[in-house]
Amino acid sequence: MSEGEFDLIARIRRRIAARDDVALGIGDDCALLAPPPGIQLAVTMDTLNAGVHFPPETAPADIGWKALAVNLSDLAAMGAQPAWCTLSLTLPHADAAFVDGFCDGFLALAAQHDVALVGGDTTRGPLSVSIAAHGFVPAGAALRRDGARVGDEVWVSGTLGDAAGALAQWQAGTAIAPPLRARLDRPTPRVALGLALRGIASACIDISDGLLADLAHICRASGVGAELEADTLPASDALRGAFAADARRVLQATGGDDYELCFTAAAAQREAVQALGARLELPLTRIGRIVAGSGVHCAGLDDLAPGYQHFA
Amino acid sequence: MSEGEFDLIARIRRRIAARDDVALGIGDDCALLAPPPGIQLAVTMDTLNAGVHFPPETAPADIGWKALAVNLSDLAAMGAQPAWCTLSLTLPHADAAFVDGFCDGFLALAAQHDVALVGGDTTRGPLSVSIAAHGFVPAGAALRRDGARVGDEVWVSGTLGDAAGALAQWQAGTAIAPPLRARLDRPTPRVALGLALRGIASACIDISDGLLADLAHICRASGVGAELEADTLPASDALRGAFAADARRVLQATGGDDYELCFTAAAAQREAVQALGARLELPLTRIGRIVAGSGVHCAGLDDLAPGYQHFA
Repeated sequence: MSEGEFDLIARIRRRIAARDDVALGIGDDCALLAPPPGIQLAVTMDTLNAGVHFPPETAPADIGWKALAVNLSDLAAMGAQPAWCTLSLTLPHADAAFVDGFCDGFLALAAQHDVALVGGDTTRGPLSVSIAAHGFVPAGAALRRDGARVGDEVWVSGTLGDAAGALAQWQAGTAIAPPLRARLDRPTPRVALGLALRGIASACIDISDGLLADLAHICRASGVGAELEADTLPASDALRGAFAADARRVLQATGGDDYELCFTAAAAQREAVQALGARLELPLTRIGRIVAGSGVHCAGLDDLAPGYQHFA
Repeated sequence: MSEGEFDLIARIRRRIAARDDVALGIGDDCALLAPPPGIQLAVTMDTLNAGVHFPPETAPADIGWKALAVNLSDLAAMGAQPAWCTLSLTLPHADAAFVDGFCDGFLALAAQHDVALVGGDTTRGPLSVSIAAHGFVPAGAALRRDGARVGDEVWVSGTLGDAAGALAQWQAGTAIAPPLRARLDRPTPRVALGLALRGIASACIDISDGLLADLAHICRASGVGAELEADTLPASDALRGAFAADARRVLQATGGDDYELCFTAAAAQREAVQALGARLELPLTRIGRIVAGSGVHCAGLDDLAPGYQHFA
């Protein structure tokens, strides 16, 4: 987008925070960054498109928050400490109010995690946000998908199905319960949990496509299966209040966009995991176990979501 | 894009090359990368949208090539050695033929520069490509925009105006000269030149928005002005054959998308620059000098492109 038309980049640039390891930030052909010695760099990149990943009427601040949150959630799932990001913002037309609102949400979350915005671009086109996020993890310490072993226990953080519940209400044209809407629009990347799980969890993933689908990624990568109990899946009061038990169970097991962490850990780590949940004041719920075989079986869903009886 | 729908990522993944410093590539929440000790990481991110950055009928292979080329060009402009990239590909619908074609162009250029594709995503939406590219540069050795000094000479690589000439022919509905079309669709990132200019150039930028606009970035960042002679700007035979002198000069001075490097160097470096051009078999043309003041003045354009008489 030519500078003569308008200068959205300047609006963003004057609001961003510094980090000592950013030798050169926005304003040149590249950012210049100084990775600390001895770390591995964890890199992820996710795009959100209007009408696909968020309802078109979503507030700009919520779009900014969520676009960064889904990327920080990927860093959390690897046990990486967030550091830097780049942002590519595509807008139908120059819209300073949109950019200011977007920055409100984006930078609020960035500040929480000391993430520096170091580059990117603004282009013209249908509303879309791409972010690449970078974090640090000691070599060999990352939480990968391929470490689950038979006998491990399966855990999940927070509550499940809230974002999908909000989306179901939005699609049905009914009023969206505010606590569910907040979970859809402003997901919380579980960064502190991911860092604390290093050395405790054997495998980890963030729940973006739904618990069963995402746990199936762990199972495939690890060459194992998983058995869950639908009754054990954690639900928020808001979800319990808004959906009958059967519909709620399906949302919890298959709904995406919660950005909680699903992880596996040896049974010997059970007390360590419970202590961690207490320290972080974040519910960590044991929902099943890793078994020989393949795919994810969730008891109690059999008649409710036939396609998910054995999800592989 | 859910895996149940189709698996474009697998189509891409099985074709990509490895690098020893990629500890974990595509397939987890993040890639895990090992930066060499002592380097600065150069990071850039650019998005190309259909109908804005390339004509909608552009061949998929050319889109793949160009999307990577514009990012490698940013690394070249900093004097960085390309290493890794992430790709976010947004498509209106699952289109395996498009992805295969896209990969043909993308991976051909990636192989030329030993760039590993380490992650990203595929989403549904209007055709768009975002790439984040990462390269290495010794600490303090990067070619920045802010190093031009009064008395430095201004240089440019290759020829100017070719891509803009192709675009002008496309917009006029006339046949596009094949050599010009090739420059628009398959720009050559000047990576070897950027690396060789470390220690020689005082400032550098790649020409994406047009020579005058991009040199003005150097002038602003360096607190100087520049004086050019339109007659000295290098032109290809194809451009000379397709446009009369006046129209050609405007294309050369203001046309974007050539992805040549514009750089400044002390007059004492003139022979070193000339030797470099001979070694790389790439024309390097001296087109003006850095002066006190601000903005870029290009003699010989005064009546042709009034807005560019003093471009700041």
